[in-house]
Amino acid sequence: MPRVPFPDLVSELHHVLSRQGVPEPRAALVARLFAENQRDGVFSHGLYRFPGFVALLKSGRLDPHAEPVRVGGLGALEQWDGRMGIGLSNAHAAMGRAIELSRQHGLGCVGLRNTNHWMRAGAYGLQAADAGCIGICWTNTIPLMPPWGAAEVAVGNNPLAIAVPRAGGPLLLDMAMSQFANGKLEVFHRQGRELPVAGGFDRAGNLTRQPGEILASRRPMPIGYWKGSALAVMLDAAAALVSGGQTSQQIGRQGTEYAVSQVFIALNVTALAGMDEIEASVNALIEHLHATPPLAPGEPIRYPGEGMLRSRRESLAQGVFVEEGQLEALRNL
Amino acid sequence: MPRVPFPDLVSELHHVLSRQGVPEPRAALVARLFAENQRDGVFSHGLYRFPGFVALLKSGRLDPHAEPVRVGGLGALEQWDGRMGIGLSNAHAAMGRAIELSRQHGLGCVGLRNTNHWMRAGAYGLQAADAGCIGICWTNTIPLMPPWGAAEVAVGNNPLAIAVPRAGGPLLLDMAMSQFANGKLEVFHRQGRELPVAGGFDRAGNLTRQPGEILASRRPMPIGYWKGSALAVMLDAAAALVSGGQTSQQIGRQGTEYAVSQVFIALNVTALAGMDEIEASVNALIEHLHATPPLAPGEPIRYPGEGMLRSRRESLAQGVFVEEGQLEALRNL
Repeated sequence: MPRVPFPDLVSELHHVLSRQGVPEPRAALVARLFAENQRDGVFSHGLYRFPGFVALLKSGRLDPHAEPVRVGGLGALEQWDGRMGIGLSNAHAAMGRAIELSRQHGLGCVGLRNTNHWMRAGAYGLQAADAGCIGICWTNTIPLMPPWGAAEVAVGNNPLAIAVPRAGGPLLLDMAMSQFANGKLEVFHRQGRELPVAGGFDRAGNLTRQPGEILASRRPMPIGYWKGSALAVMLDAAAALVSGGQTSQQIGRQGTEYAVSQVFIALNVTALAGMDEIEASVNALIEHLHATPPLAPGEPIRYPGEGMLRSRRESLAQGVFVEEGQLEALRNL
Repeated sequence: MPRVPFPDLVSELHHVLSRQGVPEPRAALVARLFAENQRDGVFSHGLYRFPGFVALLKSGRLDPHAEPVRVGGLGALEQWDGRMGIGLSNAHAAMGRAIELSRQHGLGCVGLRNTNHWMRAGAYGLQAADAGCIGICWTNTIPLMPPWGAAEVAVGNNPLAIAVPRAGGPLLLDMAMSQFANGKLEVFHRQGRELPVAGGFDRAGNLTRQPGEILASRRPMPIGYWKGSALAVMLDAAAALVSGGQTSQQIGRQGTEYAVSQVFIALNVTALAGMDEIEASVNALIEHLHATPPLAPGEPIRYPGEGMLRSRRESLAQGVFVEEGQLEALRNL
């Protein structure tokens, strides 16, 4: 794959969004977020998703001019309405507001309803970590998984991100409640590969590593079986209550995914301890993981976010990976 | 198993704790918490653990007179030191304080360090839900799991609880990051039973459903493989930073588990919407789960906490299960 300097990639995406009528500074922000996802190696929510996003803009089902508004709250807990605007900029505004609240209150929480797909959960966790906060955020989705014991899809896979600040690069967890995202199942299926572990059930109800069987049965596996299923339900309930918005079930009734509910929490840990102290604690934790004997010689244990930070360093030094012809295709969107 | 009226059970435990010098009202609170765990069917953290708790009191390694103290904070985010007091009453005080903070600030968060085993994570989530808040809390532990790809135990299983308020009984998730707790592995092993799904690795590194193999290898499975491992690391880092306390690694250096770090968050959702509205939203979610076709006819999908609430109702109506001779043994502690 060719590599493109990061600023050039941002600029290319920015042009496309401006041409689609996305106002400033929103077009600049959304271009940067998509480019950062690609830079960090999260290809599933970078350029690969960008054409679909532009199609959504063209469809008129998403309002690029909509500003999220505060509709209620108490102290450091606020409810916002995303007014069916752009999911990425809505989420960025909501986490930005949670961070702002945490400056005064020590922590802040924003529930955001009537918003759209935020692409990468981790982006808003990282936003908080870059501001010296622990960031916790999650979203609900259209039903994508059967709850434990069910024959049919009925709960979202409700991605959750947690980020911890660190000068050398934050720790980041960014995970959906299904063992493998649908996109990943499709990639393995196209490549004719087995999953590394069981990723769901076949139509007969047996655990399988065959991605095609899971796509056919629509029975992806929740992480930890009953545990991930329950966590998905709890995140859904909490997102709907904190935002005053829709549950996964209500989103499912629409047929397509829009008007989702999200929660953004910023914990201002740098108000409790100096950044030096935080740094020392997090670095000790990393050193401990790196010093743990690995199962496979030469494959040291990684901390959450380590692979992402490596991709980022490589992208910034050598350029961001894009697929052959991908940029040219974007110019014609 | 015989059944004992709930108030009688509380009273029996209360007597034992008073005899061990636990002051009031702490003895009453700790007795109630242990009895409630038993009442709710969480036998692993009820009477089964009580003799060990009394032994800890006798050992002097835990100070029943220690009061937790606030050591720092900003607004709705506070750090408390548990001063090596009783884990259950410390945790109850910390969630109580988070709830109090949420009355003024919309949400509250307390980091608690130098505390001891809180027994059941869910107890403090339920405490928040009973006060009309979403409760989120977690603890770190001594290292109990190998992080993903590791040959040795290096991370805690760091139990997490999330509770959502509901007049008809809250939703509750209470889960460790390992697929099966050590206690559960031991029970299956003693009974000569296989686990329902793979619960870890044998010494050769193969997934296994044999509990004895996992106890021997000390390689229990994180939920969702690499995902649960990463979540455990993030919860540990966040607990240490928010509380200013020890990480799992530091606890591990002690040899036995004490002076752990915990986080308590209360989100005052009843300040955002009436309890009626919350009730309607949560009940709709429950009805949706119950209406989802099950895999096994006659085994409807359960919402998180449903089994617990059923145990509670039965215990209150018919008495709380205790093992034969268990109460008599308590009297002789």
